[in-house]
Amino acid sequence: MTAQTSNIHFTNARLADGSLVDFTVTDGRFGAITPAGSGPAMPDAVDLAGQLVVPAFVEGHIHLDTSFYGDAWRPHIPCTNGFDVRERVAFQAQNLAAAAPMAERAKNQLELCIGNGSLSMRSHVMVDASVGLSHVETILAVREKYRDLIDIQLVAFPQSGILSSPGTAELLDEALKLGCDLVGGLDPASFDRDVNGHLDVVFALAGKHGAGVDIHLHDGGTLGLFQVEEIAARTKALGMQGHVVVSHAYGLGDIPADALAKAGAMLAATGVAIMTNAPGNHAFPPVAALRQAGVTVFSGSDNIRDSWWPYGDGDMLSRANMIGYRSGFYEDHELEAAFDVVSHAGAKALRLKDYGLSVGARVDFVAMRAQHVPEAVVALPKERTVYRRGKAVAKNGTILAS
Amino acid sequence: MTAQTSNIHFTNARLADGSLVDFTVTDGRFGAITPAGSGPAMPDAVDLAGQLVVPAFVEGHIHLDTSFYGDAWRPHIPCTNGFDVRERVAFQAQNLAAAAPMAERAKNQLELCIGNGSLSMRSHVMVDASVGLSHVETILAVREKYRDLIDIQLVAFPQSGILSSPGTAELLDEALKLGCDLVGGLDPASFDRDVNGHLDVVFALAGKHGAGVDIHLHDGGTLGLFQVEEIAARTKALGMQGHVVVSHAYGLGDIPADALAKAGAMLAATGVAIMTNAPGNHAFPPVAALRQAGVTVFSGSDNIRDSWWPYGDGDMLSRANMIGYRSGFYEDHELEAAFDVVSHAGAKALRLKDYGLSVGARVDFVAMRAQHVPEAVVALPKERTVYRRGKAVAKNGTILAS
Repeated sequence: MTAQTSNIHFTNARLADGSLVDFTVTDGRFGAITPAGSGPAMPDAVDLAGQLVVPAFVEGHIHLDTSFYGDAWRPHIPCTNGFDVRERVAFQAQNLAAAAPMAERAKNQLELCIGNGSLSMRSHVMVDASVGLSHVETILAVREKYRDLIDIQLVAFPQSGILSSPGTAELLDEALKLGCDLVGGLDPASFDRDVNGHLDVVFALAGKHGAGVDIHLHDGGTLGLFQVEEIAARTKALGMQGHVVVSHAYGLGDIPADALAKAGAMLAATGVAIMTNAPGNHAFPPVAALRQAGVTVFSGSDNIRDSWWPYGDGDMLSRANMIGYRSGFYEDHELEAAFDVVSHAGAKALRLKDYGLSVGARVDFVAMRAQHVPEAVVALPKERTVYRRGKAVAKNGTILAS
Repeated sequence: MTAQTSNIHFTNARLADGSLVDFTVTDGRFGAITPAGSGPAMPDAVDLAGQLVVPAFVEGHIHLDTSFYGDAWRPHIPCTNGFDVRERVAFQAQNLAAAAPMAERAKNQLELCIGNGSLSMRSHVMVDASVGLSHVETILAVREKYRDLIDIQLVAFPQSGILSSPGTAELLDEALKLGCDLVGGLDPASFDRDVNGHLDVVFALAGKHGAGVDIHLHDGGTLGLFQVEEIAARTKALGMQGHVVVSHAYGLGDIPADALAKAGAMLAATGVAIMTNAPGNHAFPPVAALRQAGVTVFSGSDNIRDSWWPYGDGDMLSRANMIGYRSGFYEDHELEAAFDVVSHAGAKALRLKDYGLSVGARVDFVAMRAQHVPEAVVALPKERTVYRRGKAVAKNGTILAS
C-alpha cells in the first residue's frame, strides 16, 4: 500500500464557471478534479460548501522594507516644490530611523498580505549608498522565515538611482549574489538623467546573473514612452523576452491611441509585462487596451502605509476592484479581467510554475462566499480562507497556527 | 427627583483631537462632555475603551429604488454607441421588471448603509411617465418604517428628463405633495436640450413647495460649467442660498484653474453645494480647491450594484478613502478633509440640525478602533458600533434587534 498520508480531499468547491467540483490534493498538488458528488463519498473531506474557489492572489509589487503597517502612525509632509523622489527618499530615511525593526515591519506586512490571500509576491528592496545591503539582508532572512507560507521574489531596487549614487552598481551586483532574483531600476531619464547609462548597468547585471529585470518608471507622456521603447528594444536584443517588467509606466496612460497601439504591439512582441496599481490621482496604463494588444498587465499593492503614501490594505482582491473602478470596468468579462490582473496575469509576469486550479498545479487557493468572480470583485468578502499546498494557512485575515 | 431613565453614560471615548472624554446622553442628545475620569464614577456607563468616536456618516446621494444589492446578480451590458442615459434607463427598466420587490431591495440597501454607520441620507427617487409615482410611494413607506434608525431626505428625481418626458413636471409636483423633500433635475442641456426650460420647472416647483433643489449634472467641460453658473445664478436670484445642490458636476473637474476659481467663488457666494462620489474613470470636482474656495463639497455612494454600475459598498468611510485616493490626499489634514466630506460637510449640505459631537447635538456616532481620523480613513475598520440617539443600533455591519 502506498503512503496516503499527504492526500487531502475537498468537496463542493465552486469554480469560476459556476460548476461545483471535488478535488484531491496529493503532496500539495491537484490530483483529480471531478464534478461534485461524482466520486465515492469521502467522510474525511473538507466541505467547501459551495464557496467560490479562486487561485491565491499574486502580489506583484510591494516594498517589504519600508512600510510602517502595524508600527506607529507617521504623518505625511507636503512637497516643497512639487513631488520629488529625492525629497521623499530623505523623508523615508528620517521615518525609518525612528521605526520599529525592519524584520518586524516586514512580518506585519507579509501577514497582512497572506491573510488576504496572496501566496506569491514580488518585493522591491532598497539598495543604495546609505543603507548598503542592510535592507536586502534583513528581507532575505524574513523571506526564509516565511518560506512555508509564501513564495517571494526579491528585486534589488536602486532607490537612489544608479549613476547618481556612486557604488550602487556594485551593491546591486552584491545583492544579486546574496539571493535577490531580479535587478531593478528607477526612472533612467528623470532620476539618473541618462537612459542608456542606467539601462546599460541594469541589463549587464541581469545578463551576468541570469536575473530578470523590473524597473520603476514613473515618467509620464512621451518621456515615459521613450524609455518603455528602450527597455523593450534591449529585452529583444538580449533575448530576455518574458523576463522584463516595467512597473508603473504612467506614460502609457497619457499618450495618443496611435502611440499606445505601437507601444502595445512592441510590449506584446517582447513579452515585457506592465505592472500597475491603478493609482488614484494620475494617469496609468490602460489595462483593457494593453490586454487586448496581448500585453501581460499585472498588479501589486505597491506602498502600504509608508513614506510615499498612507493608503494600502495588502488585499489584491480589493486591488482588482480598484483596477476595475479606475478602468471603468462594469461588465462581467471586465470584472473577470480585473481579477485576472491580480491572479493569472501576475503568475505569468512572475513566471510562476504550476499556478492555477488545474491538475498538477500547486493547491494554493482562496475560498469565499461569492457566486462568481465578478461578484467577488465588487463585494470583496473579507471572510475568506486561504489554502497553501492544500492546507488552510489563514482565515478571515488571521494567520492560522501551523 | 426628576426622571433619569433616559440618561445614558459613556466613558473613554476618543475624540478626533486625541482627547479621551466621558459624556452623558439625555433624551438622545449630548449632555455634558467632560475629560475622561474627571467626574464621579458611573458604574452603569458604557465603556468605549478608547475607541475613536466620530459623528455618524452622512450618505448624501443614493438611489434607494434602483439597487439590486442583496438581490440576484444582474450583469451589465455594453453601451451601443458610447454611454447614453436613455439606453441605461431602458436597461434599468428591464432589470427592475425582473427584480425582487422594491421595498425589499431598498431595505437591503438601507441596512447596509446603517450597518456601516450612516444615519442620515439623501436618496433620489425616480419619477417619470413610465413609473409615475410608484417608486416615490414605495420609498416613502420604507422611510417611514426606518424612521427610528435613519433620517432620510427624498429627492423627486426626473430620471427621464422633464421637458422630454411629458407629464413629468406634474408628477414632480405630486411627489413633493406626497412627501418628497427636494426637487431634482437631470442634465438640462444634454438630456432635455433646454437649460432654461428645465431649470424653470425645477426652480418653480422648489418655490411652490418651499423645497430644496438637487440636480444631477453629468455634463463635462464648459457645458457643465455653464449649467453650474446658471443654477448658481437662479439660486441667488431666488434667495435660495444653502438650499441647492449640484450632484456630480463633472465639468468642474476638467476646466482651467482660472474658470474653476471663478466658479468656486460663485458657488461659495450662493451656497450651492457640490456632491461627488469620486468616480473612478473620469474627471470630477477638485475637492481641495473647492473647499479652499469655501464651497461645501459632500459625498454619497450614488449607485450601489444597480443598472448604472456594479460597484458600491454603502460605506461612507470607504467613500472618504476613495475621495482621498482620487484626490491625492496624503497628509493628515487632507485625510481629515476627506472625512469631513462624508460627515460635517454632508450635514451642512443636507441642512441637518444638531449634527456633530457637541453639547445639545443628537448623539449619533460611530465607535471604532483607530488612533485618529486619518488612520480610520486609510484603515477602514469594519468592526464598528453605530449609535443613534445614544443607543447602539448596529455592530460590525449588522443591525441590532431594537
